[in-house]
Amino acid sequence: MSRTPVWKTIAASLTSDIAEGRYRNGDRLPTEAQLSATHGVNRHTVRRALAELSEQGLVHARRGAGVFVAARPTEYPIGRRVRYHQNISASGKIPGKQILALTTRAADAQEAEALCLESGDPVHVYDGLSLADGLPIAVFQSVFPAGRFPGMLKALEETQSVTRALQGLGIADYTRRWTRLTARRASATQALHLRVPEGAPVMQSVGVNVDPDGGPVEFGRTWFAGDHVTLTLGET
Amino acid sequence: MSRTPVWKTIAASLTSDIAEGRYRNGDRLPTEAQLSATHGVNRHTVRRALAELSEQGLVHARRGAGVFVAARPTEYPIGRRVRYHQNISASGKIPGKQILALTTRAADAQEAEALCLESGDPVHVYDGLSLADGLPIAVFQSVFPAGRFPGMLKALEETQSVTRALQGLGIADYTRRWTRLTARRASATQALHLRVPEGAPVMQSVGVNVDPDGGPVEFGRTWFAGDHVTLTLGET
Repeated sequence: MSRTPVWKTIAASLTSDIAEGRYRNGDRLPTEAQLSATHGVNRHTVRRALAELSEQGLVHARRGAGVFVAARPTEYPIGRRVRYHQNISASGKIPGKQILALTTRAADAQEAEALCLESGDPVHVYDGLSLADGLPIAVFQSVFPAGRFPGMLKALEETQSVTRALQGLGIADYTRRWTRLTARRASATQALHLRVPEGAPVMQSVGVNVDPDGGPVEFGRTWFAGDHVTLTLGET
Repeated sequence: MSRTPVWKTIAASLTSDIAEGRYRNGDRLPTEAQLSATHGVNRHTVRRALAELSEQGLVHARRGAGVFVAARPTEYPIGRRVRYHQNISASGKIPGKQILALTTRAADAQEAEALCLESGDPVHVYDGLSLADGLPIAVFQSVFPAGRFPGMLKALEETQSVTRALQGLGIADYTRRWTRLTARRASATQALHLRVPEGAPVMQSVGVNVDPDGGPVEFGRTWFAGDHVTLTLGET
């Protein structure tokens, strides 16, 4: 078992403090001198820890003013009704979406099964980035049955919102049938989009949304940046 | 952006195949020669990828026979009723618990808030390891109000089960009030217990269980090994 370097332990402790809301968005962290004293280490070690946090987008230094918490982790409720815009607004942040790609292709076996299609049937695919207060919190890929929703890509281009696009196509409401969550390492591409180091922990969420009759309308995969998002279930 | 080494890409692809059930517990993976051909790389690269999977406990090599899937990720339902023994049995595996430590100490601010105690009030703490088919899938720390459950540690020692210990102390049923999930890196100690590399992705789950009157009976933190567990919500 390799020993964890002290700067990593300090970085982890500050990350928890931020994650748990002890320091909030815009708060100034203790000074380097204070942190050195608290942890009984030299300032070089503290600087290394703060550099790590800065790299993860958790804090930013303002010259002469100190180090500030960049953004509190976004709380994201998961349950039967998953609505990005509503969820992010409810956490007091400004939601945003960025389209990375809109394509039409053949469904693979997993997508076909989830959407009750035949493997090879056409699907519309929405690759995108979810933002909260301008900070990327997730990359996602949403897959829709093209046969049922021929106008989906155009609707997504116009609205950038799955909820509104589906509404425009006659699906007034939809609910989450199931969700599967796993912790993974960010791939190079995911890391680039999420502005985290390659290999950083991400939460992979795979799920299916269904219409009121139980018909699958969307198969989605989302990768949440571990340090920027807390998924919540039940009242908090 | 640094380029992902090819062996890592192959390891990630095989990990997904296992996670998604394309290869199941006990299945033999394609041979080195087959994997070399499929991915268009030399056998050295394939060997590096398989070594990585083996290190993570996902596969094991049998001399002369091939490489076999060690264990399918355990599916673990999270929702209003979280019962370890039942959940693991339902996934077709043998549940196990290992006590790491049973202690009594003062509650910190977070524990006190979750359990409706004053900071500094005594709590009983159960540090343990959860196993499925003998493979560690999670480390956890469960905290109980010592004033309300003076006999908790003795009951845990006898039963190793939170459900049965609480039953013995008059709590016939309990439900999950809330759960918060974040992706983290395994600390050195967590990695040691979970038999994963230090820094491997883990899913941190923090939650509170309440009795039928809504009184908090347990504040729990669990760290699930990312590659060994899939958390599920809703029907799957």
